[in-house]
Amino acid sequence: MSQRVYIQEVAPRDGLQIEARFVPTLEKIALIDALSHTGVTKIEATSFTSPRAIPSLADAGEVMAGITRHEDVDYVALVPNERGAERALAAGADELNLVMSASDGHGLANLRMTPWQSLERFPAIIEQARGHEVFINASISTAFGCPFDGEVPASRVIDIVERLTALGIGGVSLCDTTGMANPMQVRALCEQVLTRWPELALTLHVHNTRGMGLANALSAWQAGVIRFDAALGGLGGCPFAPGASGNVCTEDLVHMFEEMGVDTGVDLDALLDVSATLSGLVGHEVPGQVVKAGRSSRRYSLPEHARPS
Amino acid sequence: MSQRVYIQEVAPRDGLQIEARFVPTLEKIALIDALSHTGVTKIEATSFTSPRAIPSLADAGEVMAGITRHEDVDYVALVPNERGAERALAAGADELNLVMSASDGHGLANLRMTPWQSLERFPAIIEQARGHEVFINASISTAFGCPFDGEVPASRVIDIVERLTALGIGGVSLCDTTGMANPMQVRALCEQVLTRWPELALTLHVHNTRGMGLANALSAWQAGVIRFDAALGGLGGCPFAPGASGNVCTEDLVHMFEEMGVDTGVDLDALLDVSATLSGLVGHEVPGQVVKAGRSSRRYSLPEHARPS
Repeated sequence: MSQRVYIQEVAPRDGLQIEARFVPTLEKIALIDALSHTGVTKIEATSFTSPRAIPSLADAGEVMAGITRHEDVDYVALVPNERGAERALAAGADELNLVMSASDGHGLANLRMTPWQSLERFPAIIEQARGHEVFINASISTAFGCPFDGEVPASRVIDIVERLTALGIGGVSLCDTTGMANPMQVRALCEQVLTRWPELALTLHVHNTRGMGLANALSAWQAGVIRFDAALGGLGGCPFAPGASGNVCTEDLVHMFEEMGVDTGVDLDALLDVSATLSGLVGHEVPGQVVKAGRSSRRYSLPEHARPS
Repeated sequence: MSQRVYIQEVAPRDGLQIEARFVPTLEKIALIDALSHTGVTKIEATSFTSPRAIPSLADAGEVMAGITRHEDVDYVALVPNERGAERALAAGADELNLVMSASDGHGLANLRMTPWQSLERFPAIIEQARGHEVFINASISTAFGCPFDGEVPASRVIDIVERLTALGIGGVSLCDTTGMANPMQVRALCEQVLTRWPELALTLHVHNTRGMGLANALSAWQAGVIRFDAALGGLGGCPFAPGASGNVCTEDLVHMFEEMGVDTGVDLDALLDVSATLSGLVGHEVPGQVVKAGRSSRRYSLPEHARPS
């Protein structure tokens, strides 16, 4: 098991995307800039989607233009199609994150495309990116289960990964979009992908919808995964599960790894400082635990009656 | 790794103990009776403590007298001292759960005794229990770290377990009282205890204070642990961490194991039904996730635009 993992922050995109309140552009930029100094290796900064589809991220171009780039951070833009890719490339994204679903139901509901239709669209985007210094990652939503179709066979995900690598895509994220994955399943699928494609930059992207976020991350790490998406404060959530948690929480994930002696490269104190500003930004409590409880190493004074007299 | 685990419900004691609202005796009894039909193997029903110390459980005797016992469930009473043991034995508890701390600071703060002083008191309680058909378990608080003293060396916990087994105690719970444990630490300590005392009935008791509850349970299971304390709804909490989660949540733990194909013997639907009554009982939201999100297998209808026309 690796003693170094890489933390990829997705709150500005996957977190803010479903927030009811439109977070003003300058506040988004300030959040990304603050995150840039915490040691995360990537920040998914925004999504170049139709503003009608996702009004909360309608300012994608201004956000990308407004941030102060840190040389150690890759700024990722989610792109759903050629138009999005064009805008993301113009904005100078370091990485395009193409999205597709592993399941027909979620693909049709979310992107109006089956997985196979998505795969047909990707070559055109890859062609667009040629000549740009940009990394291409593909995120496979519902890789561990679909809220519409139910179980998603591992063989289907493997088939998709195979097609993606055949297209020359260098990174793949296995996404547990609605928090259906369990640790055994995560371990089995990640082991299978890593064994077959040892050179692939594999990311685990999990949600904490049913409380298993950290357990699933632990299990993926045991399988050899070293790249993890996470959202500050556990932002994110799922439209299907009101009240349930969102993405796995960045600071809780970093805290777990650091407590286990696994280096994340992240300055947890700096991250907690940024996290403490979140509820003000989004206007509600967020699910993260460590920002409330403090690190495990936090100490308290003995109560009076327990002190030596 | 075992394909059968045993779930021990502690909400009526560890959960209700810190609630501001006094849950009326009849409601406590109804909760325990409902839990008795879910498949949990033990229910920590109450604590025979001084009513002045823990007013929320001042009705321990009435609770024990009022419940309808299920033959497959052991009803556990926490006992802090000889007086408590006397009352618990008179109430017909199936199991006495003796408590001590692994750390001096927590022991002095919580019990006004160091670990070594606690160990000196236990023989008298064991003597009291002689002739009663009662199982004796000892819970070691702060076994993975102390909020006052900090790190608790594994060697200290091993030393304590050795002394407990020498007293003839058949069960030991390693308690992460304030949610400081991490999965590597849990695995290492549990493996050490199980290797040295394979006949000991070992329980893992974890809190979700820093979000690691399920990850720690997973890790303990990987080490061979098959008995888990958990609190319905994730009740419990920690006086030091306002807003942070409590005990690991029973229904979330059961859900994780069942999703992994590990038999818990628990009827999750029945458990979720009881959990749904909890916030009414305690007067606030509780942290459990699965009761909000539903099981991973929950299905949704495709939105109109995604349906075949």
